[in-house]
Amino acid sequence: MDRIVRVNMTDLTTCIEPVPEAWVPLGGRALTSTVVAAEVPPTCHALGASNKLVFAPGLLTGTAAANSGRLSLGAKSPLTGGIKESNAGGTAARMLAKLGIKALIVEGMPADDKWYSIHIAKDAITIQEEKELLGIGNYCLVQQVQARFGKPVGVMSVGPAGEMKMLSSNISVADPEAHIRSLGRGGLGAVMGSKKIKFISIDDTGTPPVMPKEGAKFKDAARIFAKTLLDHPVSGQGLPKYGTNVLVNILNEAGGLPTRNFTAGQYAAHDKISGETMHDTIVARGGMPTHGCHPGCQIQCSQIYNDKDGKYVTSGFEYETIWGLGADCCIEDLDDIAEADHVMDDIGVDSIETAVMFGVAMEAGVLPFGDGKGVVRMLREEIGMGTPLGRILGGGAGQVGRVYGITRVPVVKNQGIPAYDPRSVKGIGVTYAMSTMGADHTSGYAIATNILGVGGHIDPLAKEGQIELARNLNIATAAIDSTGMCLFIAFPALDIAECLTSLVDMINARFGINLTGDDVTALGKAVLKIEHKFNQDAGLSKEHDRLPEFFSKEPLPPHNVVWDFTGEELDTYWNF
Amino acid sequence: MDRIVRVNMTDLTTCIEPVPEAWVPLGGRALTSTVVAAEVPPTCHALGASNKLVFAPGLLTGTAAANSGRLSLGAKSPLTGGIKESNAGGTAARMLAKLGIKALIVEGMPADDKWYSIHIAKDAITIQEEKELLGIGNYCLVQQVQARFGKPVGVMSVGPAGEMKMLSSNISVADPEAHIRSLGRGGLGAVMGSKKIKFISIDDTGTPPVMPKEGAKFKDAARIFAKTLLDHPVSGQGLPKYGTNVLVNILNEAGGLPTRNFTAGQYAAHDKISGETMHDTIVARGGMPTHGCHPGCQIQCSQIYNDKDGKYVTSGFEYETIWGLGADCCIEDLDDIAEADHVMDDIGVDSIETAVMFGVAMEAGVLPFGDGKGVVRMLREEIGMGTPLGRILGGGAGQVGRVYGITRVPVVKNQGIPAYDPRSVKGIGVTYAMSTMGADHTSGYAIATNILGVGGHIDPLAKEGQIELARNLNIATAAIDSTGMCLFIAFPALDIAECLTSLVDMINARFGINLTGDDVTALGKAVLKIEHKFNQDAGLSKEHDRLPEFFSKEPLPPHNVVWDFTGEELDTYWNF
Repeated sequence: MDRIVRVNMTDLTTCIEPVPEAWVPLGGRALTSTVVAAEVPPTCHALGASNKLVFAPGLLTGTAAANSGRLSLGAKSPLTGGIKESNAGGTAARMLAKLGIKALIVEGMPADDKWYSIHIAKDAITIQEEKELLGIGNYCLVQQVQARFGKPVGVMSVGPAGEMKMLSSNISVADPEAHIRSLGRGGLGAVMGSKKIKFISIDDTGTPPVMPKEGAKFKDAARIFAKTLLDHPVSGQGLPKYGTNVLVNILNEAGGLPTRNFTAGQYAAHDKISGETMHDTIVARGGMPTHGCHPGCQIQCSQIYNDKDGKYVTSGFEYETIWGLGADCCIEDLDDIAEADHVMDDIGVDSIETAVMFGVAMEAGVLPFGDGKGVVRMLREEIGMGTPLGRILGGGAGQVGRVYGITRVPVVKNQGIPAYDPRSVKGIGVTYAMSTMGADHTSGYAIATNILGVGGHIDPLAKEGQIELARNLNIATAAIDSTGMCLFIAFPALDIAECLTSLVDMINARFGINLTGDDVTALGKAVLKIEHKFNQDAGLSKEHDRLPEFFSKEPLPPHNVVWDFTGEELDTYWNF
Repeated sequence: MDRIVRVNMTDLTTCIEPVPEAWVPLGGRALTSTVVAAEVPPTCHALGASNKLVFAPGLLTGTAAANSGRLSLGAKSPLTGGIKESNAGGTAARMLAKLGIKALIVEGMPADDKWYSIHIAKDAITIQEEKELLGIGNYCLVQQVQARFGKPVGVMSVGPAGEMKMLSSNISVADPEAHIRSLGRGGLGAVMGSKKIKFISIDDTGTPPVMPKEGAKFKDAARIFAKTLLDHPVSGQGLPKYGTNVLVNILNEAGGLPTRNFTAGQYAAHDKISGETMHDTIVARGGMPTHGCHPGCQIQCSQIYNDKDGKYVTSGFEYETIWGLGADCCIEDLDDIAEADHVMDDIGVDSIETAVMFGVAMEAGVLPFGDGKGVVRMLREEIGMGTPLGRILGGGAGQVGRVYGITRVPVVKNQGIPAYDPRSVKGIGVTYAMSTMGADHTSGYAIATNILGVGGHIDPLAKEGQIELARNLNIATAAIDSTGMCLFIAFPALDIAECLTSLVDMINARFGINLTGDDVTALGKAVLKIEHKFNQDAGLSKEHDRLPEFFSKEPLPPHNVVWDFTGEELDTYWNF
């Protein structure tokens, strides 16, 4: 029987509630955004007692459905000032689902200066004061927490950056190897830090897998669904072999790889940081080129990257991180980038926000472009230690721009723009401008259709069709983010009809209901409208649905194109 | 013959234009806001080439009218993101008016890394590269510039903070003694710094005073007007004797003196920093308790404050600065505050923004409450030198709040709230929330009627009548700011009928026109509407017309009152 768990950090109480009728058909992002919109005042201070952290596994999480183990976290974002859903793999989502927890809502804030942990198990939810584990990084923390319980409990934690309430801080989620996955974007680590929670541990001992209401029907649909993942060339071959970093060479070729703080669309040293190079390096050093971020993942786009001596450095080593520190900061050494990735995971900062930030900091002269060792040092000794410089850098790209008076600052709603230049890949530019999340490629991944030829093809350099493309992808993504599914199921979903139908079949079999594809689309639309309303009430007006001025003024080589959508054109995005 | 002077910093050209028909009846703030609204894209980056600095003397500036020598500066504010008019005394306004310059519009931005000065004289406007004067403080700069020209030229300059584009940086305006007045609020020093202008010098040699069209009529009106300034107890007695700092004891008594970062409304050590104490100290040390900030000032609320050895420390030592570092930062030593005031003027930061910022920084633990020596050191060695900590602090209260994750941050539209607690003086709270300028007491000085009994009395603790009061005062102030008049003429204007009528008579005689009091009110309304429209187009929605959350949640001693206006109530402010 599903329930809602509330943890009140003001009076250190917990309470278990039945799921309100209206929330029964919701999961993942649909649920987190609904709860945040219903219970968090849009104009509240994001780091104050009125904000809430809402953790929710997806509708299919905990079942045997492939790739259904993603966790949604909702809150008001201290980075964007709007609503936020951040999404990660790891083991927590499945454990929460098995425990029958449809949402974990953490509210309030301790009046005193003490820090706490929350432990969730089958028979009890407990809050405990923490002292010794404060200030330590996520890698060590996961080890210590699992050692404390003597088993591989789920762990969601903040590193030093989250404890210091830095706006680029994230929340880490331990994966099956006790490595680090991240609820990365929007500074939600600062919200957890403001509530003085160092970590949340989850023990699902004694709970069975989630059993669908209609077992046979579910099993059939799940088999069809899984096959579409394997059949599609992107999810079945490209991603498993090269990881997301397969994109470096593709985007470089397309002239859409933002380079040297978004001043060019191609990076001369792209070969040194490409997915192909990375794959060969991993294999040569005895790492794992193919690996899953959560139990039940079938795409396996993650990997384990070792150093020259064959020792573990990082996993979940993503294209966006490698693009950001590589092309955008002009760091050619993949080992430097991997070490930086490790440190970012350990101190708990979003690797996209941080990489974009370093591009701006380099333009400001804080350190030279290409200085990989400098980046690693600043992550460890400045951001991780909370020095004044670290406090500046830990606030993300927008803050560094403001502090140093830089005008070329690639952010929307104060969140760093990832990995794809909107001037030469205009569909993703519409997503960046219009997403309720601030600049976020995952909220409407137009790269699929603009660059990868998935779901058809729309010329990335032309304006035609981009708004409709971005709108449809954002709607579909809001629905997918509600299922607990990994976003990469969108590749087969866009090209293979059985993927979506089997997904809907699984949901219906899970709950014994009769949704249609249209119902799922309607859900995605409803989620976006709820989020948009929250943002408007928080003060994000249509002028915030815009890209920074420089994209319209500075032509991007090699295509020498500018961002040329008008405000009026962009606003038609909301016509649904 | 009045004209518009444009200086283009992109191609280093100047041009003189006739005054467009529509701008003829405008001056001061009415003109700066009109030009900014017409020529600056609201969504542009405030530190980019699209922003403009618009300097304009008022309608009466340059004439013999008492207190008419104020200068308006308009631009898009990098601090608030909205339109800004900042206003100062000094000699520049009168010189520009005598030179027939109705507005000086500085636009564009140099492509290279060179710095410049602009020199304005009767026969030529020149742009010159500057090297040796870079990095030095305003006090020394004024000396050196006047030495270069061998005469007391007008000087408008940025200190190191403006050169570094800090968001609290101001633009200094030399006064008759070559001391420092400030176009203080909204970070306009950063705009001047972004255009790489270290200073603008003005030589009015060879220009006569501005002659009204109807001399005799003007003279009569000017005499009546001047008499009202002397007759009113505030402008004729309180301000000349104690300066604006007369307010410390008054606000403390009223429980509206924000103390210890806005956690109380009374300051135990108020006597040590009061206007009365300051007056006696100044007299005992051979300073000047009574002094004017610009030629023709009759109120003389400024002063010259010396140290224990009788050496000059500061002038224009205002209540807001003394409140901010005194009560709000709990610094009891007036000499420490005076030295801080000197350094703030010298490095070129707004003393209100900076004082409010230090209150937040003290709450964040950056330095202890009460540490006056620490404030002076941080101003000189951190902000003035642009260290990382200095970069944080130089960004103002909002930035310090974001960097350290503080929730009690007294800002509206990211601009620090001055000197009067909105919970216990609700009329000024409405001004803070609704002003187009961000939190700005001067834009609608409800203290007059809430506390000083000027223009009637409205209970400061009650909601009734406050919105109408604030609206009327903001309208009147927008008009006064357009005349070149010091805001303190508002005291007699609210109580003595002849003050306003003679003011209108002077404007009519100056231009040979026939305005009525209603026309002046209509001008004030039009200015506010222009500014409001700009702000909306810049993305400042009605949710930005609100006070921070903590004012509604934390009761303020001794009255234990909270801010209790709803958004709907506040929005009625715009019903005119």
